[in-house]
Amino acid sequence: MLGNFTYCNPTKLYFGDESLSYLNTELPKYGKNVVLIYGGGSIKRNGIYDEVVRILKDNGKEVAEIAGVMPNPTLPKLYEGVAIARKHQADLLLAVGGGSVCDYAKAVSVSVNCKEDPWEKYYQRFEEPDCETLPVGCVLTMVGTGSEMNAGAVITNPETKQKIGHVFADEKIMPRFAILNPRYTLTLPHYQMVAGIYDIFNHICEQYFSGEDDNTSDYISEGLMRSLLHSSRIANKNPQDYEARSNIMWTATWALNTLVAKGKSTDWMVHMLGQAVGAYTNATHGMTLAAVSLPYYRYILPDGLPKFRRFAVNVWDVDPAGKTDEQVAREGLQAMEDWMKELGLVMNIADLGATEEMLEGLADATLVMDGGYKVLSRDEIVRIFKESMGQAVNPKA
Amino acid sequence: MLGNFTYCNPTKLYFGDESLSYLNTELPKYGKNVVLIYGGGSIKRNGIYDEVVRILKDNGKEVAEIAGVMPNPTLPKLYEGVAIARKHQADLLLAVGGGSVCDYAKAVSVSVNCKEDPWEKYYQRFEEPDCETLPVGCVLTMVGTGSEMNAGAVITNPETKQKIGHVFADEKIMPRFAILNPRYTLTLPHYQMVAGIYDIFNHICEQYFSGEDDNTSDYISEGLMRSLLHSSRIANKNPQDYEARSNIMWTATWALNTLVAKGKSTDWMVHMLGQAVGAYTNATHGMTLAAVSLPYYRYILPDGLPKFRRFAVNVWDVDPAGKTDEQVAREGLQAMEDWMKELGLVMNIADLGATEEMLEGLADATLVMDGGYKVLSRDEIVRIFKESMGQAVNPKA
Repeated sequence: MLGNFTYCNPTKLYFGDESLSYLNTELPKYGKNVVLIYGGGSIKRNGIYDEVVRILKDNGKEVAEIAGVMPNPTLPKLYEGVAIARKHQADLLLAVGGGSVCDYAKAVSVSVNCKEDPWEKYYQRFEEPDCETLPVGCVLTMVGTGSEMNAGAVITNPETKQKIGHVFADEKIMPRFAILNPRYTLTLPHYQMVAGIYDIFNHICEQYFSGEDDNTSDYISEGLMRSLLHSSRIANKNPQDYEARSNIMWTATWALNTLVAKGKSTDWMVHMLGQAVGAYTNATHGMTLAAVSLPYYRYILPDGLPKFRRFAVNVWDVDPAGKTDEQVAREGLQAMEDWMKELGLVMNIADLGATEEMLEGLADATLVMDGGYKVLSRDEIVRIFKESMGQAVNPKA
Repeated sequence: MLGNFTYCNPTKLYFGDESLSYLNTELPKYGKNVVLIYGGGSIKRNGIYDEVVRILKDNGKEVAEIAGVMPNPTLPKLYEGVAIARKHQADLLLAVGGGSVCDYAKAVSVSVNCKEDPWEKYYQRFEEPDCETLPVGCVLTMVGTGSEMNAGAVITNPETKQKIGHVFADEKIMPRFAILNPRYTLTLPHYQMVAGIYDIFNHICEQYFSGEDDNTSDYISEGLMRSLLHSSRIANKNPQDYEARSNIMWTATWALNTLVAKGKSTDWMVHMLGQAVGAYTNATHGMTLAAVSLPYYRYILPDGLPKFRRFAVNVWDVDPAGKTDEQVAREGLQAMEDWMKELGLVMNIADLGATEEMLEGLADATLVMDGGYKVLSRDEIVRIFKESMGQAVNPKA
């Protein structure tokens, strides 16, 4: 049921290996004080930092920096960035990095002029900003999160051990522009590349595996998944294939910029399971998703059978002739497993550092979602983690 | 090859049967002088006019009107509208209708403050506006053109018999907002509904049938085509199926809002052939496309064989086992023909009023495009028109 919804996504995207030059088009639109935001410094090693700083100088900008934004940006780091942006009287926040850096820039944007504590206001009460927000621009160096074209910002509170995402309602929170140069992604290690690919794939799954089957969003999702399968196989063999990495980057944006969620309730349970694993092991996000996905999907398959059957036929080209719906659906998940192993994804949470002793804590840390085909009980969550660890579970339990 | 491109599409879309109420959200953003633009008056018969006028009054707007915008908006009508908008000192142009009305509103928007003749500037020299443009909002009552979310505006000069489209480069020319209520499309006669469905399908084809096969845009296009096939079959049997009409409306927007053209050279030859037929017969646009499509696609099939094969397998579920690529590709076009006949589309330009005597004139009126798999000669164009008329053509000619 497509229903009622609003779609607005004004971010201007400059795509391709010539895209950084468009920073010269964008910068004159903003005042002279720019805060440059980046992560652990890989952009200094690969030269992107120098290029960006040169363009900023060419455009007469006064630049302050927020360096060292971590993969899961923390609340203390947010406070630090807000102080820097205030002191510099920032006119523009320029994020150079992956999803975490973009997320962080958006969190700073809504907090700089906020009179209350941003954690309380945005991440506990989930309110919208009632203050002036700062424009954000992105130079994307890693793909996966769609953060370059959405209004989401995840922040982690290390004291309370809460990692909370807020998708803001106002499209003004979305980056004003984003520069997507696939060449920047070529230096990523293979492990990170395939983890990112699975993250993208799972973003689509989280939206696809909900609701009924007659929705345009489902069809667009299938197209995006097929594109990703195609390009991932090329990139897996040859990570330097620019064309494949281009298509992966473009697919990542459309996987999570709100389009394929239109008319869908959306699930997000794999992310909840994976994030619990991440909180305990600090494992790479995409790998935590990979390790819990199949135990979860195989478990809920009977509850979403028509969709899993459709997934098998439309995404994995399973021939349904002479088979029951459940056989077709399970063949689809088997094809997905084969592809995941081909990429070298981690399929077992024990391989990410999870232990038997963590099981209860993992279950406690897992937020239960209700938009998918089944609402999991705590026991079912434990069972799924056990399955991932390769422990035999009584199928009738 | 995805290559280098820019994507920006800031139009805010309100979708669903409650969407008109969002006019109350949008109107306060603009000054008090609104020019209401509409077509032949069907909105007066079905009550939409009264609803819109009531909301305008509720919001304290001063309203002037441009009524009678025709299916192919003419240059004299543009001059008339520009005069009305100037006199009313318009702050917002509100288009209520289908693609022609939206197109027309955009043409007025770029012309109101233009010091030169808009035909010369925009439709002969294809320049961009260097003056202030007016914001445009749309209430869509017919689907098909994507005009509610792009920067295109087609204007016809009856004196020179030229129908020319200009896709403006600046996203500011795109409507600021569009209200898409699928319920408004339910009153359309079956003939117009299926013509619109084919127009949408062909918009996707025009972009899909170009370039090589590894592009994310091709995969999204396939998803959109599959969605449209699914919903069109439901709507063909039961035009009052709100869900099917919803998905058709949403697919139409994404078929022509620039997304699936990214990284593509695009063809548009079917539109050129069809528009020539339209100029001579005044037949419904979608039907002119339907009548020339298969003769064209069958003729160029050898030049785009891998794509036509892919189209057969991915869109029409043709089983390729044991067949040559050409057999698979031709089976795909046969499946497409079966679907077109199922919808009741016109498959012969003679049935639209074209005659033997018009053939040379039709060929003269056909603009030749060079983004597809083959650049047609004049003889080839005549041949395609003859094929559509059911005349035997020497296959080796």
